[in-house]
Amino acid sequence: MFQARGEKHWVIPDGYIPPTSSGELLSHESICVLNCSSEEALLRCTIFFEDREPMEDIVVIVPGRRTKHIRTSSLQKDGAPIPVGVPYAIEVRSDIPVIIQYSRLDATQPENALMSTMAYPLKG
Amino acid sequence: MFQARGEKHWVIPDGYIPPTSSGELLSHESICVLNCSSEEALLRCTIFFEDREPMEDIVVIVPGRRTKHIRTSSLQKDGAPIPVGVPYAIEVRSDIPVIIQYSRLDATQPENALMSTMAYPLKG
Amino acid sequence: MFQARGEKHWVIPDGYIPPTSSGELLSHESICVLNCSSEEALLRCTIFFEDREPMEDIVVIVPGRRTKHIRTSSLQKDGAPIPVGVPYAIEVRSDIPVIIQYSRLDATQPENALMSTMAYPLKG
Amino acid sequence: MFQARGEKHWVIPDGYIPPTSSGELLSHESICVLNCSSEEALLRCTIFFEDREPMEDIVVIVPGRRTKHIRTSSLQKDGAPIPVGVPYAIEVRSDIPVIIQYSRLDATQPENALMSTMAYPLKG
Repeated sequence: MFQARGEKHWVIPDGYIPPTSSGELLSHESICVLNCSSEEALLRCTIFFEDREPMEDIVVIVPGRRTKHIRTSSLQKDGAPIPVGVPYAIEVRSDIPVIIQYSRLDATQPENALMSTMAYPLKG
Repeated sequence: MFQARGEKHWVIPDGYIPPTSSGELLSHESICVLNCSSEEALLRCTIFFEDREPMEDIVVIVPGRRTKHIRTSSLQKDGAPIPVGVPYAIEVRSDIPVIIQYSRLDATQPENALMSTMAYPLKG
Repeated sequence: MFQARGEKHWVIPDGYIPPTSSGELLSHESICVLNCSSEEALLRCTIFFEDREPMEDIVVIVPGRRTKHIRTSSLQKDGAPIPVGVPYAIEVRSDIPVIIQYSRLDATQPENALMSTMAYPLKG
Repeated sequence: MFQARGEKHWVIPDGYIPPTSSGELLSHESICVLNCSSEEALLRCTIFFEDREPMEDIVVIVPGRRTKHIRTSSLQKDGAPIPVGVPYAIEVRSDIPVIIQYSRLDATQPENALMSTMAYPLKG
């Protein structure tokens, strides 16, 4: 049995889904989760906005001893996705410790731009 | 009532507003703040330079349960903005804990470049 | 004699080897390790996937008072490399403390994109 | 009098000075330091390589209440700069606490690529 490692609570303040793509690749963001443990991790995501109420409790499962690179465009609350072209922020709570990194590929131009950072862990 | 999470004091040593833009998007930097709590957060920003005195106490409000992606070009002290094309650094103090990420889009060329990092939290 | 500094256990959730390159430079990722100590560091890497069992115990040596920028495409388990174009995650355990940064150059287009972040340290 | 904040010991494992530039901007890396205190900070940098002995004790001064964005190409040891096109790592020790971020602009193509991360703080 492998032990869970990392933290249960993570934050990414700079979320943004580029509204357009051109060229070979598609603009997207990924919430990249590693679950080191033998058990499944249950994640609950909250999406915060600048000018409206948060979208709460979007559920994602990450199997044991697996990674999952979650496209933010795939997250839905009651059938509604995160709006594109709007600044937002992401909070993730997991029932067991995991590690989370956030990356964005912007393909607004055919020549891509990339950015990445570890999510910020909220401890205790 | 939601609790405030994160830290009250953050630093970004590499600030720089690209002086030019070309193509579809505008060069800019953002200080992306998440306020998880139910209460408003009051931020005070200090801008440090290489060769002159700091600009102190620029105030920004982030409402409760909201994110704010603050363009650094919008920050002003006595009507004067941060100069463009000049290396600087940012210190942010908040009256309640928040989480801060810094991102820059450089559109000096029509093909953009992106960078992002969590701000550095000063604890205790 | 120089002392070992950093941590013995690091994680990078967002691994991805771009399958194509064009232009002057080659798409690649690097796990950049600094070994401050006078002694050799023995690293054991585990590669996690979304839909298959992990590749475990890939060994890398970093000499004392040296850095090593390890191309992930050079890592092999029983002669098999990490597959390209597939999301994965990296766990690194070292027998002595080291510091690890992760960077990716995406040259899918002749115009490159770069991203970098410190790996996430697992303490205690 | 303003208090020093941050850490006295920082590491950047992924150093690399791109050997070529094209287009409008010059390829470069910057070690961006913020000295919040009223006193001058004295930094000593060590440069580690993959296959040769470190360059030790390169001294840089950062005045009080100032930032300094240090081009790595400006660092010299006995008149010798850091070689370009070679993987290296940076260790910085400061006599008082400071905060350090590392950024690279790669202008190998006229279309730039950017990356940035906080340096890794070594505590205690």
